[in-house]
Amino acid sequence: MERYDIAIIGSGPAGLASAINAKTRNRKVIVFGSSDLSKKLTLAPKIDNYLGFYGIKGAELRDKFKEHIDNMGIQIENVKVNNIYAMGEYFSIMTSGDTYEATKVILAMGMEHTKPLNGEDKFLGRGVGYCATCDAPLYKNKVVTIVGYNKEAESEANYLSELASKVYYVPMYRDDYELTQEVELVKDTPVEIVGQNKVEKLKLKLRELETDGVFVLKDSAPPEQLVPGLEVEDGHIKVNRKMETNIEGCYAAGDCTGRPYQYMKSVGEGQVAALNAVEKLYRK
Amino acid sequence: MERYDIAIIGSGPAGLASAINAKTRNRKVIVFGSSDLSKKLTLAPKIDNYLGFYGIKGAELRDKFKEHIDNMGIQIENVKVNNIYAMGEYFSIMTSGDTYEATKVILAMGMEHTKPLNGEDKFLGRGVGYCATCDAPLYKNKVVTIVGYNKEAESEANYLSELASKVYYVPMYRDDYELTQEVELVKDTPVEIVGQNKVEKLKLKLRELETDGVFVLKDSAPPEQLVPGLEVEDGHIKVNRKMETNIEGCYAAGDCTGRPYQYMKSVGEGQVAALNAVEKLYRK
Ligand SMILES: Cc1cc2nc3c(=O)[nH]c(=O)nc-3n(C[C@H](O)[C@H](O)[C@H](O)COP(=O)(O)OP(=O)(O)OC[C@H]3O[C@@H](n4cnc5c(N)ncnc54)[C@H](O)[C@@H]3O)c2cc1C
Ligand SMILES: Cc1cc2nc3c(=O)[nH]c(=O)nc-3n(C[C@H](O)[C@H](O)[C@H](O)COP(=O)(O)OP(=O)(O)OC[C@H]3O[C@@H](n4cnc5c(N)ncnc54)[C@H](O)[C@@H]3O)c2cc1C
Repeated sequence: MERYDIAIIGSGPAGLASAINAKTRNRKVIVFGSSDLSKKLTLAPKIDNYLGFYGIKGAELRDKFKEHIDNMGIQIENVKVNNIYAMGEYFSIMTSGDTYEATKVILAMGMEHTKPLNGEDKFLGRGVGYCATCDAPLYKNKVVTIVGYNKEAESEANYLSELASKVYYVPMYRDDYELTQEVELVKDTPVEIVGQNKVEKLKLKLRELETDGVFVLKDSAPPEQLVPGLEVEDGHIKVNRKMETNIEGCYAAGDCTGRPYQYMKSVGEGQVAALNAVEKLYRK
Repeated sequence: MERYDIAIIGSGPAGLASAINAKTRNRKVIVFGSSDLSKKLTLAPKIDNYLGFYGIKGAELRDKFKEHIDNMGIQIENVKVNNIYAMGEYFSIMTSGDTYEATKVILAMGMEHTKPLNGEDKFLGRGVGYCATCDAPLYKNKVVTIVGYNKEAESEANYLSELASKVYYVPMYRDDYELTQEVELVKDTPVEIVGQNKVEKLKLKLRELETDGVFVLKDSAPPEQLVPGLEVEDGHIKVNRKMETNIEGCYAAGDCTGRPYQYMKSVGEGQVAALNAVEKLYRK
């Protein structure tokens, strides 16, 4: 299998900063994320504190970033990474469809600000999950509910419906939902996940769903779910001044490493992570 | 005396990033540095790794930065800071002509890359100094030599010549030197500072100067000279992830905190330093 020098998870300011620095140093890089770069960036109404651009709209700054990476020939793999495993000499990076290998990994997934559902933490691993396609085999001929925070979650629901006996889809956003006939759309608000030892029901405002599993699909999963063994402190990935995490060869940058949640902090950390990763690659 | 919320020492990328963030948060800020912002920035031939500007000339990026701070009404005090003293509740900031007060200080002085002269470290405080105007009284009626790395050093030589019995000026750059008649220009290359217990001579390639003191005047003095008591490790200011130094209320950002020496790292750290300083100001 082709092995990349550095895999970057996330295409926001932090991930892009990592990418341009690794690319300048001639490393073989792969960037996973959204081809629209970052929802937060796109939505920012007016940015006064990214040095060099005063009073710029988020969408305009996104276009400048896009132009920058285009000029350097950096592409973005428009897929979500589900799991990353440290294999010793390299990392195995799993998406729904493929597996990739990279010697170093930089986590730049941003920060998910939505609160967990009541019962979500309690039943994690006992019916609650964050990656429907990964855990699909467990739900063969069972009832599954997906609480989806974005459009991408719809295809996970569609995929699951091929195996599960029943799939409910509870969208947390408004859109034209593209669901197969097998998926039941439930326009309602989740209140609590309940059960004895494992998930039995999802209580909503208007009704209750009997279900064997609940998948909560947000823009990004909690980092410790993405990378087993990763040290997390108060919801943020623990890093040192070199942006190294507790896992050797795995770096982190941007909002996911802690406050303040800001562009310049994110690009600065992305740069430091990439240059330290590159240095380690040389030394090998 | 007027007391500022935050004094920023240095007008490079790190200092400016601090300034725009403190200003956005409505704090009373003073920035010391060069009105040309940063020599390193101005001299950079082509910058590919400041996200948003691909292949930009250093001088162009400087102009963008200048425009940004102009738009926000941020001015730069075009003077060198000689000493900073922690007074408990606030800091006292000394320039050649004035004293300023600020509740918090952010050090963003960049990094001086020129090697120390032979003997410089050995005789520091015993005839070797970094601020001629500060130490002038010690050299009344004595012989002083100034090794000047930039044009600003000329005025320190001129000032000293009013007190000292003799002033030699050894320039480390080419220019039209504007020295008073009392100052002797020595176009030669320093080799070593020598003496028994204190400075006695400066050896140059072509001649030797008998001298009671040698001032080495670079763009920036070593940080521990600027701020007595500051913890320095391998020539860099020691900071934690909040950009706090060992002195309460004193932060640092940019090249002066360590490698990599880069723009994005500098602006990111400048932002983090400013936002943490602002938070502490609110909490008081
Ligand atoms: C409305 C708004 C206004 C703001 N205004 C400002 C401002 O004026 N100034 C300022 O400095 N900051 C502002 N911010 C904050 C700023 O947007 C963030 O600090 C910044 O976007 C963080 O960058 P990041 O690269 O760490 O993460 P993000 O920008 O969040 O990017 C993370 C990327 O990673 C992707 N990703 C996550 N998980 C995975 C996965 N498993 N696989 C593949 N891809 C994944 C995401 O889809 C996303 O594209 C604002 C934020 C918002 C929401
Ligand atoms: C030729 C060249 C090319 C470069 N190219 C790149 C590149 O392509 N990409 C990249 O990322 N980086 C590049 N760099 C590195 C980059 O210039 C530095 O990392 C960056 O300038 C550091 O910013 P700073 O704010 O920490 O310090 P500086 O930019 O050095 O600014 C410090 C400022 O503080 C002032 N100052 C110092 N002491 C005092 C004092 N006591 N009182 C008042 N003011 C003081 C100085 O005069 C200066 O204005 C390059 C550097 C050089 C020299």
